[in-house]
Amino acid sequence: MSPADEGVQTPGPEPVAVATTGPVRIVGTGLLGASVGLGLCRFGVEVTLADPSPTAVALARDVGAGRPARPDDREPALVVVAAPPDVTADLVAAELATHPSAVVTDVASVKGTVLASLRAAGADLTRYVGSHPMAGRERTGPAAALPDLFAGRPWVIVDAGAGADSALAVRNLAVDLGAIPVAMDAATHDQAVATVSHLPQLVASLVAARLRDAPVEALELAGQGLRDVTRIAASDPQLWTAIFAANAAAVRTELAALRGDLDTVLAALAAADVASGPTTVAEGTLAALARTLAAGNDGVARVPGKHGGQRYRYARVSVLVPDTPGSLAALLGVIGDTGVNLEDLDIEHAAGRLAGIANVAVLPEAAARLETELTRRGWTVV
Amino acid sequence: MSPADEGVQTPGPEPVAVATTGPVRIVGTGLLGASVGLGLCRFGVEVTLADPSPTAVALARDVGAGRPARPDDREPALVVVAAPPDVTADLVAAELATHPSAVVTDVASVKGTVLASLRAAGADLTRYVGSHPMAGRERTGPAAALPDLFAGRPWVIVDAGAGADSALAVRNLAVDLGAIPVAMDAATHDQAVATVSHLPQLVASLVAARLRDAPVEALELAGQGLRDVTRIAASDPQLWTAIFAANAAAVRTELAALRGDLDTVLAALAAADVASGPTTVAEGTLAALARTLAAGNDGVARVPGKHGGQRYRYARVSVLVPDTPGSLAALLGVIGDTGVNLEDLDIEHAAGRLAGIANVAVLPEAAARLETELTRRGWTVV
Repeated sequence: MSPADEGVQTPGPEPVAVATTGPVRIVGTGLLGASVGLGLCRFGVEVTLADPSPTAVALARDVGAGRPARPDDREPALVVVAAPPDVTADLVAAELATHPSAVVTDVASVKGTVLASLRAAGADLTRYVGSHPMAGRERTGPAAALPDLFAGRPWVIVDAGAGADSALAVRNLAVDLGAIPVAMDAATHDQAVATVSHLPQLVASLVAARLRDAPVEALELAGQGLRDVTRIAASDPQLWTAIFAANAAAVRTELAALRGDLDTVLAALAAADVASGPTTVAEGTLAALARTLAAGNDGVARVPGKHGGQRYRYARVSVLVPDTPGSLAALLGVIGDTGVNLEDLDIEHAAGRLAGIANVAVLPEAAARLETELTRRGWTVV
Repeated sequence: MSPADEGVQTPGPEPVAVATTGPVRIVGTGLLGASVGLGLCRFGVEVTLADPSPTAVALARDVGAGRPARPDDREPALVVVAAPPDVTADLVAAELATHPSAVVTDVASVKGTVLASLRAAGADLTRYVGSHPMAGRERTGPAAALPDLFAGRPWVIVDAGAGADSALAVRNLAVDLGAIPVAMDAATHDQAVATVSHLPQLVASLVAARLRDAPVEALELAGQGLRDVTRIAASDPQLWTAIFAANAAAVRTELAALRGDLDTVLAALAAADVASGPTTVAEGTLAALARTLAAGNDGVARVPGKHGGQRYRYARVSVLVPDTPGSLAALLGVIGDTGVNLEDLDIEHAAGRLAGIANVAVLPEAAARLETELTRRGWTVV
């Protein structure tokens, strides 16, 4: 595949088999909706697009996510509602009513409240299957859509008693988009995302909020740790308010548990503070701090690696890259020549320039050979 | 500079002028101590190494950080104590006593308690100047040392009434190692690092601790946000317990403030939880959540960029990179051909392979030209 063949606007080759045959109607053409459309259009599936914003529809069409819906469209086989959680249930109910033969799914990040609202509204739940693709980007809107957004990512499917055909249609959608279907009930899903997504989001905001009034001289001392912890605090407040409100019970449980640990740390800090020095603090005070930190060690060790739901184990080869134009390209060229497949790459920077260390991730069995080859060619492996 | 010229074991050319003339004695040859030695040895400064661990001294010597200290060494001009904060004051006092003509500094990440202990011990504070280089790595120990570890990073210098020559010697050390000296009093420093370093560290551990007993199915849904928030939770519990204990008052202030905001969020979640849906929650409940998130937006916007203390503003050009060997090297080669300087690079991954989007940071004035050149050559700019 040459660079020119790969592109947002350029449909790829027809797949060997695509389970979703369409027509597919997408309601909500933001990042997720437009990415679903883009992924399906590459396979020749007929996709129509609807959104309260005509601009969002036009942008989604322009990136190749489908064509604007019209009143005389064929009846869809599948409707995908890709809207904020606080409007999702109403939209799903309306689509179920308007398209009486269609399967309807949604991609909202909270599932229990959507399901409860639909039940309360008496919607036809034999044709509704909730879902939640665990994918996103820092940028939003249809212009940020990617056909590969869901590739290799878990796609949670919540089947609360729908017909077998309905569940299969949503599963097929996930598979066609390269995602990994994960069956889960709504409560399990909502508690899981409270732990791995909503709690970190809230806490990142709480830490970042402490920086609002911090002196500039303090901020100038910031390092990568602060940047990492607060990065997602740049997220959209309106969207996240809707998510927290929709998943209030589960998020509250997680946050209350964290507050319990926080209070233990506060008590230990108070004990350490009144003492004249670390060697004279009350017995057990330092142990309480160390236990919290050790628990964090244990927890972070359980987080899967960079590559989606699976825990790949790569070996890391760190190479010094000189501060001269083309050095990184030369390094990657040499790696390509060795035939070793580059699985991942990150660069540690010196300030203001690209000189630094390239950390190259490769399969463990290839690491020693790569180190030998690089050293032989004059590169410094750290 | 060719790759072979740049290396941990290979001394670089003599600098035009180096202010630190030595001998320099380094007490504590972990990551920081060994990196100081490595940086100075490249300039021909005489460096001797001491550490309670003979292995640490031998490793530091092997990476080129200096030679093991001997009883018959010349008197040092400068002593650098690079030890955990709970032993730093005692070591500084001992070095001041043993080397009556030397200037002594330390690199501990807390300054107030060290200074107070030295005052209490009646140490000669005309020859002591505390410092704190804002640099580190995820790996520890002398084997992870880098001569450029401090390049472009702030190096806080706390001069609590030392002689002018003493302060200048420590400032010279920072400048020789490529760091940016920042004068600050101990209390200001300790509050600053509580905000930008100690609080994020603690909170990362608290979030990660929630994962210890989380079901595997929840962890498998984790994305980049969780990985970023919890990355530094992998830090050494013993070292960080000593840091928190030594900076207990300032950390407590920050953590208590965060807990106040957290309680506001908990109250809002409780109000949202009892209501039947987001549209019927008590007035002001959602606003409290949104305010917390907006405060986070404001705070994170104040965090300086990737390149140390200065806020560089680069333009980002995002390019699709096909999943074929050598594609990234080809892209970087093309960028090199255009003459545009690559300031930074990160890659957004699809799962399990390198296909994805390369985000290339360049000077704003070069972005349009780079986009044109890349498009002309068949690359897809997203």
